[in-house]
Amino acid sequence: MDLYTRALELHARFRGKIRTEAKVTVDSTDALSLAYSPGVAAPCRSIAENREEVYRYTNKGNSVAVVTDGSAVLGLGNIGAEASLPVMEGKVLLFHEFADIDGYPICLDTQDTEAIVSHVKAIAPSFGGINLEDISAPRCFEIEERLRQELDIPVFHDDQHGTAVVMFAGLLNGLKIVRKSLPQLRVTILGAGAAGVAIAKLLKAADCEDVTLLDRQGIIGEYRDDLNGSKLEIARMTNPRRLRGGLAEAVSGSDVFIGVSAANQLTPEMVASMHADSMVFALANPEPEIHPEEAKRAGCRITATGRSDFSNQVNNVLGFPGIFRGAFDVRASDITHGMKLAAAEAIASIIPEDELRDDYIIPLPFDRRVVPAVAA
Amino acid sequence: MDLYTRALELHARFRGKIRTEAKVTVDSTDALSLAYSPGVAAPCRSIAENREEVYRYTNKGNSVAVVTDGSAVLGLGNIGAEASLPVMEGKVLLFHEFADIDGYPICLDTQDTEAIVSHVKAIAPSFGGINLEDISAPRCFEIEERLRQELDIPVFHDDQHGTAVVMFAGLLNGLKIVRKSLPQLRVTILGAGAAGVAIAKLLKAADCEDVTLLDRQGIIGEYRDDLNGSKLEIARMTNPRRLRGGLAEAVSGSDVFIGVSAANQLTPEMVASMHADSMVFALANPEPEIHPEEAKRAGCRITATGRSDFSNQVNNVLGFPGIFRGAFDVRASDITHGMKLAAAEAIASIIPEDELRDDYIIPLPFDRRVVPAVAA
Repeated sequence: MDLYTRALELHARFRGKIRTEAKVTVDSTDALSLAYSPGVAAPCRSIAENREEVYRYTNKGNSVAVVTDGSAVLGLGNIGAEASLPVMEGKVLLFHEFADIDGYPICLDTQDTEAIVSHVKAIAPSFGGINLEDISAPRCFEIEERLRQELDIPVFHDDQHGTAVVMFAGLLNGLKIVRKSLPQLRVTILGAGAAGVAIAKLLKAADCEDVTLLDRQGIIGEYRDDLNGSKLEIARMTNPRRLRGGLAEAVSGSDVFIGVSAANQLTPEMVASMHADSMVFALANPEPEIHPEEAKRAGCRITATGRSDFSNQVNNVLGFPGIFRGAFDVRASDITHGMKLAAAEAIASIIPEDELRDDYIIPLPFDRRVVPAVAA
Repeated sequence: MDLYTRALELHARFRGKIRTEAKVTVDSTDALSLAYSPGVAAPCRSIAENREEVYRYTNKGNSVAVVTDGSAVLGLGNIGAEASLPVMEGKVLLFHEFADIDGYPICLDTQDTEAIVSHVKAIAPSFGGINLEDISAPRCFEIEERLRQELDIPVFHDDQHGTAVVMFAGLLNGLKIVRKSLPQLRVTILGAGAAGVAIAKLLKAADCEDVTLLDRQGIIGEYRDDLNGSKLEIARMTNPRRLRGGLAEAVSGSDVFIGVSAANQLTPEMVASMHADSMVFALANPEPEIHPEEAKRAGCRITATGRSDFSNQVNNVLGFPGIFRGAFDVRASDITHGMKLAAAEAIASIIPEDELRDDYIIPLPFDRRVVPAVAA
């Protein structure tokens, strides 16, 4: 059986991937009167007097809502609320398996920005954090920003920051190998969706000065008159050499290429035009922007993809479980740029410097050292 | 330690009562690629093509949202979203323990009817059913009715129908003992909130003709000019003898008293004024409308309360787990009056007729025969 047939069979056999489990037993009238009426009135009264007590007497502080509107699911696009549920159940499963975090998939039956903000705010009392997932750009930027401002629990759009954090961890280790520093790098990012924009912002926050983004229309610069919202903001903070043109123009002379776009966008000729000791993060799934072997033959030194069957997999599971575990452990009200950079450094530092190799700059997804390190 | 101290200690020790459990393991790259990317794309695609497949490939069909706005929690009143979370976690726990149903507590940060309807509709794709809980009357009636009409999954306000179904089961068995029939009964219901109105409607649907309700202002009749909404609807379908006055006037000559109000409302003199072989369901919690021993001394034959330390406990846990289990098993899109009456008959029939006694008309909460019978 091929992978997809086996996946269908697995999902049908168990009817999904997560379920509810009890922390306490209710096998007697006494147990029932403690866990439910009338005993449950005691924690209710305590929380009514002091709302903070909800973290002491309920599971709120260890629960994440995995929220989507089904508008940008995997590489499948806008498939809607119900069809996105297998992915969201999978995400809750990963939170549970990797970080011992509980939660529930919330697939919203709307794709209106205002409505999504309103619904997530309404359900927030039951959750300790919000993981936004597979919401298309540019709506995802406003939704996350509004919720971060208006809620007192962490809100994290994993497609943006999860990818950015793990990719950045790989970059940090790659730089140790090739002995370059962030301020001197030239970086080209292909794709100005959720992940591309978040990567650009994280690089800028890490003192990486020369970052250039491209969308489907080409290089993004302040001179373009078709930009609005998040792309205009990006134009103002990137492309310091005021480049114009397409990918060939941008990538020429770059130290790092980061692709969060689509298959086969980067040609061997473009790779050959990059600086010495170049790095290519070709993260499009399932087909990368360039096959890593092809990039190597064209002169690239270090390659990374989103796939588990090549070396250096940029897998979000290295990021979000530890980031939320850490935020929950200290009851953080927000996940800041500083926390994301610290998380990336923690992921990078899992690999001792004397074990770093061109094909081992990112820890494996099942490295059990990752979550405690990131959480700390 | 008293009950409330022990309850606080239990809730703090486990930080709540429910958690997430995995149905599948993700302990290898292969397992990860089946449960998550890229394999998860297969069930997503199937559901995108045919939405019904969400019941095959996800946990939706076995999941209930326990939804509240925190406006009428236990006897504590309007304590808000966070403070209601221990009760809602408890309810999810009972669904799990009694009916093997999964779910999540959703405590909404609003008490606006339109907003609640909108939020519940928005999150419905992730759930197979909605259990409304502890939402104050009269908003609970409109919220339930709107959601029943606008959603294709079962919606059930347990404070209304759960109490009504279990109380009605007890009534059916009591009638077998005293050899009276529903059409000839005179019934007085004290309390015109969620439970009182639902009980009245269920009794009417079961051919019980002479039902009279009272609210805080006294007997409800069409002649009153202070009624609106649900109470006006009730006035039109009850009080056929056009009674006026208070509880003494209503209960005199009644066969059955049903209290869903507050402590100590029913006096021994009132009980003495009832018909022979009277039944008193004094369901106020924690203190009933009359102590059952006091009612007995005043001439009442059969008593029931909401408490576990007296005989004949009207406990909702006899109702909602089996009702949802049955609805989920046949993928019902609604829970109808007919299903509620059948559930009550199933609960009543658990006790064989030759085992019925004045102090055993309702099965015990932990009677494992109840859920399968109700579900069937």
